Amino acid sequence: MSDRLADSATGTAGIRIAVDAMGGDHGPGEIVPGALDYARQHPADQVILVGRPDAILAVAPTLPTNVSVVSAMQVVEMEEHPARTLVRKPDSSIVVATHLVRDGKADAVVTAGHTGAGMAAGTLFLGLLPGVDRPGLAVQMVRKGSPFVLIDIGANPDSTPEHLATYGRMGSIFAERVLGITNPRVALLSIGEEKGKGDKRIQRATELLDQSGLNFVGNVEGKDLTNDLADVVVTDAVAGNIVIKFFEGLSSFIFDLLRAEFRGGIRGKLAYLLLKPGVNRIRKVFDYETAGGSPLLGVKRTVIITHGRARRRMIVYALDVAARTARADVPGLIAESLRALPVVEDGRPA
Amino acid sequence: MSDRLADSATGTAGIRIAVDAMGGDHGPGEIVPGALDYARQHPADQVILVGRPDAILAVAPTLPTNVSVVSAMQVVEMEEHPARTLVRKPDSSIVVATHLVRDGKADAVVTAGHTGAGMAAGTLFLGLLPGVDRPGLAVQMVRKGSPFVLIDIGANPDSTPEHLATYGRMGSIFAERVLGITNPRVALLSIGEEKGKGDKRIQRATELLDQSGLNFVGNVEGKDLTNDLADVVVTDAVAGNIVIKFFEGLSSFIFDLLRAEFRGGIRGKLAYLLLKPGVNRIRKVFDYETAGGSPLLGVKRTVIITHGRARRRMIVYALDVAARTARADVPGLIAESLRALPVVEDGRPA
Repeated sequence: MSDRLADSATGTAGIRIAVDAMGGDHGPGEIVPGALDYARQHPADQVILVGRPDAILAVAPTLPTNVSVVSAMQVVEMEEHPARTLVRKPDSSIVVATHLVRDGKADAVVTAGHTGAGMAAGTLFLGLLPGVDRPGLAVQMVRKGSPFVLIDIGANPDSTPEHLATYGRMGSIFAERVLGITNPRVALLSIGEEKGKGDKRIQRATELLDQSGLNFVGNVEGKDLTNDLADVVVTDAVAGNIVIKFFEGLSSFIFDLLRAEFRGGIRGKLAYLLLKPGVNRIRKVFDYETAGGSPLLGVKRTVIITHGRARRRMIVYALDVAARTARADVPGLIAESLRALPVVEDGRPA
Repeated sequence: MSDRLADSATGTAGIRIAVDAMGGDHGPGEIVPGALDYARQHPADQVILVGRPDAILAVAPTLPTNVSVVSAMQVVEMEEHPARTLVRKPDSSIVVATHLVRDGKADAVVTAGHTGAGMAAGTLFLGLLPGVDRPGLAVQMVRKGSPFVLIDIGANPDSTPEHLATYGRMGSIFAERVLGITNPRVALLSIGEEKGKGDKRIQRATELLDQSGLNFVGNVEGKDLTNDLADVVVTDAVAGNIVIKFFEGLSSFIFDLLRAEFRGGIRGKLAYLLLKPGVNRIRKVFDYETAGGSPLLGVKRTVIITHGRARRRMIVYALDVAARTARADVPGLIAESLRALPVVEDGRPA
């Protein structure tokens, strides 16, 4: 952990990160300590905690010098309508934190709160980059060795082939600049590996990605998601969301079955003791906390949406991804990459 | 196993099952022994092995009296174009086997061969039921306790909301009549549980299922697929196919990690010995072979497509599902259920 966090501090410019201190299942109790950990480890960066000052100061009565508090008295509840709540709750922590970025007072926003509200705030208050029709929510997915980027996992339910092609471009830049993968392999998630397979959207997106100039390696199937075939896997919001949630459900299901066996009687307990180092190795492969959070790509600034269940340790990684994304100026690089595309007659990239 | 097979033999009428003896990764070497096992256990049923007689008789020089061989000299290769190959190879085992059903000489067809060719043969040669626009391929998916039905896993890439609603109806009849689930709970796979979530197709399909008269319990997420929330989960071909293949990939990935730990050194081996009964319990939960195969629902007769990797034991279960589906007359019940729907002006069910 220290290695990984250390090297994001090698950039020269300090990054100002606005943190929605109220969101998520655990609220300030986990988010504030995580943000403070990050601030202590990265003295050149600034952390701005956004939320109810009393709640924040209850957790952290004294703050490091690179941490400040900005007041936001309202809290978005999980069942609220995303876009509507932004209007109804202008003094909510997600709105105020995103406004700090919009107004140039912060470089990135991190939230563990209502995903829909976070995406809506990013899209509406920060705006989309020229050439981007819809943002895409990316996530780093676990596999043996290094993770890969899956995009979109829920920002844009009715995506077009053109959106999918742009996701490939945005995901590739994130993988290269934030994860440090040279010339990332981009693939499209489909029913089969052959190019004619899939629905019409996938077939057209395959053609667009083929012509994109990206390192497009073709289509992959669901069974290949755990294999090292691609660094960026493009899919639509519905399939992407089903994949990450099924991943959570199925891996918990298997590990729960195992846990029950390890706890069942003296044989199980003894087996667990013997296998503990191995269990820890497997646990490490499935350590999604180090992914930190999901970048909302296609908006003009850095927005990181982390898991509602994120605890202190994951929050540190979420701020780290935010700092890396902002420091590399991923939004600027995406804009540049889109500008470089040939323009067709209606003035939009081909 | 014997219990389950036994009770499908309680029906009175003998079922005639045409088996594509040449398909699949293992060909006649596994399919023929599996089909013969079934025939011996179900003397009232007839098994018709379709393929190259020399290849079949090389595996089984003597046949039980309720088994016959029908010659088909061509074999469909995995990389061939599904529909085209049916025209190009009229004497292939899948074509001849499906023709036996079409011509009233068999009640069901079972194939472990090229899935696309099996679906195309079923659709083109047997025809779709009145009121069915597109067939749906269903599968029994593993979860703790009883399995659930997932439909569609790849028959119809560009499904409409109306197709999804019909899948709910067809899957419900299959679950009730073949799996013995009373009043099956039908759910739609989506991004969130709330009814407004998902893409436009899902939103409209939610409305249609709400009005369908089925026991529609709403939308489920990917993480719920391992939970006992529904007996039939409806989704489109792309998401469904990604789910089953990701299931294969992810569960193999986890079990491979575990296997490596169990094999790594004396501690691992000892732990395995201690945990062996537990490992077998878990293996049993993941025993997809008992599902037998996927019914292609919406065609006029019974078509069961089993796994290309199916071995002898799974082939027995595939024939069992075929017999149950044909004996219950699932196609007839689907037709009846669709006929009972109110007809709108264009003459098609509302």
